[in-house]
Amino acid sequence: METEISSVGEFGLIDRLTEGLKPVNASTVRSVGDDAAVVRYPDTDVLVSTDMLLEGVHFDLTYVPLKHLGYKAAVVNFSDIYAMNGTPRQITVGLGVSSRFTVEHIEELYAGMRLACQVYGVDLVGGDTTSSRAGLVISITCIGNAAPGRVVGRNGAKDTDLVCVTGDLGSAYMGLTLLEREKKVGAGQKDFQPDFAGKEYLVERQLKPEARRDIIEALAKADILPTSMIDISDGLSSELLHICKSSDVGCRVYEDRLPIDYQTAVMAETVNMNLATAALNGGEDYELLFTVPLTDHDRVSQIPGVKVIGYITAAEKGAALITRDGAEIPLQAQGFNHMSE
Amino acid sequence: METEISSVGEFGLIDRLTEGLKPVNASTVRSVGDDAAVVRYPDTDVLVSTDMLLEGVHFDLTYVPLKHLGYKAAVVNFSDIYAMNGTPRQITVGLGVSSRFTVEHIEELYAGMRLACQVYGVDLVGGDTTSSRAGLVISITCIGNAAPGRVVGRNGAKDTDLVCVTGDLGSAYMGLTLLEREKKVGAGQKDFQPDFAGKEYLVERQLKPEARRDIIEALAKADILPTSMIDISDGLSSELLHICKSSDVGCRVYEDRLPIDYQTAVMAETVNMNLATAALNGGEDYELLFTVPLTDHDRVSQIPGVKVIGYITAAEKGAALITRDGAEIPLQAQGFNHMSE
Repeated sequence: METEISSVGEFGLIDRLTEGLKPVNASTVRSVGDDAAVVRYPDTDVLVSTDMLLEGVHFDLTYVPLKHLGYKAAVVNFSDIYAMNGTPRQITVGLGVSSRFTVEHIEELYAGMRLACQVYGVDLVGGDTTSSRAGLVISITCIGNAAPGRVVGRNGAKDTDLVCVTGDLGSAYMGLTLLEREKKVGAGQKDFQPDFAGKEYLVERQLKPEARRDIIEALAKADILPTSMIDISDGLSSELLHICKSSDVGCRVYEDRLPIDYQTAVMAETVNMNLATAALNGGEDYELLFTVPLTDHDRVSQIPGVKVIGYITAAEKGAALITRDGAEIPLQAQGFNHMSE
Repeated sequence: METEISSVGEFGLIDRLTEGLKPVNASTVRSVGDDAAVVRYPDTDVLVSTDMLLEGVHFDLTYVPLKHLGYKAAVVNFSDIYAMNGTPRQITVGLGVSSRFTVEHIEELYAGMRLACQVYGVDLVGGDTTSSRAGLVISITCIGNAAPGRVVGRNGAKDTDLVCVTGDLGSAYMGLTLLEREKKVGAGQKDFQPDFAGKEYLVERQLKPEARRDIIEALAKADILPTSMIDISDGLSSELLHICKSSDVGCRVYEDRLPIDYQTAVMAETVNMNLATAALNGGEDYELLFTVPLTDHDRVSQIPGVKVIGYITAAEKGAALITRDGAEIPLQAQGFNHMSE
């Protein structure tokens, strides 16, 4: 069944999308249905982050299911809040919808966002829904909180700090490469079945990334407060350079320490891509990159999923990768810069 | 001088746009340059509102200067916060920019947003800037605050309350009509000069609306707490119906009490439009619509710019306009519904 959005109108659509929403956070005082949502944070710092996703730039609906897209759009915002050492609590959703979408399509998209909210304990508290002349536009703002003094920015890294990353790198980019390849192969073929055999992990990393709430919780449990932190959305190189610039430091990371999944390595070989390049510049991993004092080495090394990949230096030493054969290569932000594509 | 955005890149552009930003609110703890902004509201409720503006749907750059557009995009968000009886404090700006825009264009847009922030005492604390395949996309989220117990929603109107509006109605819509007409007249003509003589007020209402901070301050000074409030973005009828639905009440408003500017009346006659229709359904006035207890009649009537236009009834009486000749016409939300256009 397909329902034209015009047949229910803006307010009818919003009613359907927000039906049955029940806030789970005590900080959510008033949710959807007014000019603004009301939240209350008497004792903690409030974090605010915004991300915009545009059809044709950030996603391709020929291979991204709408529910996955909704899930991802929410999760990448949660990731920004975790990257400040906070907990996401509320989101508002701005949506621009062109006439080719039906009510059911937008319900699918919302189902993904609502699922992500459920999984991460976040309330969808408001937004704006409008028509678009050109494809789907998603803009999500996430509100979160952190105890005062526990917020971690990009600007606190110090000389001799350890550089840590979570999970593995480059897999989301390899998933994108795979999806793009299968799209080309299947173009024009009816009932084409893409071949993802043995590469399911890469596809999942691209289509359904998760934010590293587990790491934030593990760091708190281990009583480790990172000196700086950022999430890896544009590639490790780019994010390392952000930390170095904001903290006025340099860094050395080791090629042989970069965490890379086996499937990523196989796929990189298949498409003849340098593996370190994929790990350094592939975007959308949504892993955490953070620094801790050298004295935290033992405790941080014990956290599953965290790997020490290098160390912070004085600013004048610059930011560089040390290759397997010992060469120093300056890091460059050639990652996912949508503005220069 | 025109600078291609690709020549400075996303981060170069953001650096230029946010240069010299100095927070003015004590609640702004950390501004642009990290994964999230940090705000602090220990003693007050926090209001969060999002608005999305899309080229070709909400604005037409053939007659909207970019600086005005930036100003308006910010102000309409402030208006949502005032409509909750709050004070806007921070905004985040999501921006999608297609390749036909230069760095200077986006600086113009930002100049307008920054001017609005300056005028209203708001801090621009973050956002996301990305490329767009299809025109300009602006998504702004506004954070504001109100003392606990002072937040006014749409849902508190009670039988016998007075219905009040600020300023005048229909002028922004008449401004739009005028701009559209001059665009048609001038189409294809080089050096065409549109004729706005005597109608400058209408053009200004459309291109450079203001949010009614003055009214919120005047209400506080007069110690009046409205029982319900909303800003008029989609037309008086639509907003009255929102209040009636949320508050489970009906209303009667009088045609001869609707505040209408002289220029609006002249323009409506010129284009052969019913004046009450323009006032009831013309969107984008960004005036405030609110209800107060009957006992506040004398005090609210003394506030300059506020007009009592009717009263709240029990829900079963429905929402209606009483015409000049005494007829009752049910209110309909036929205003600015972008989804059903």
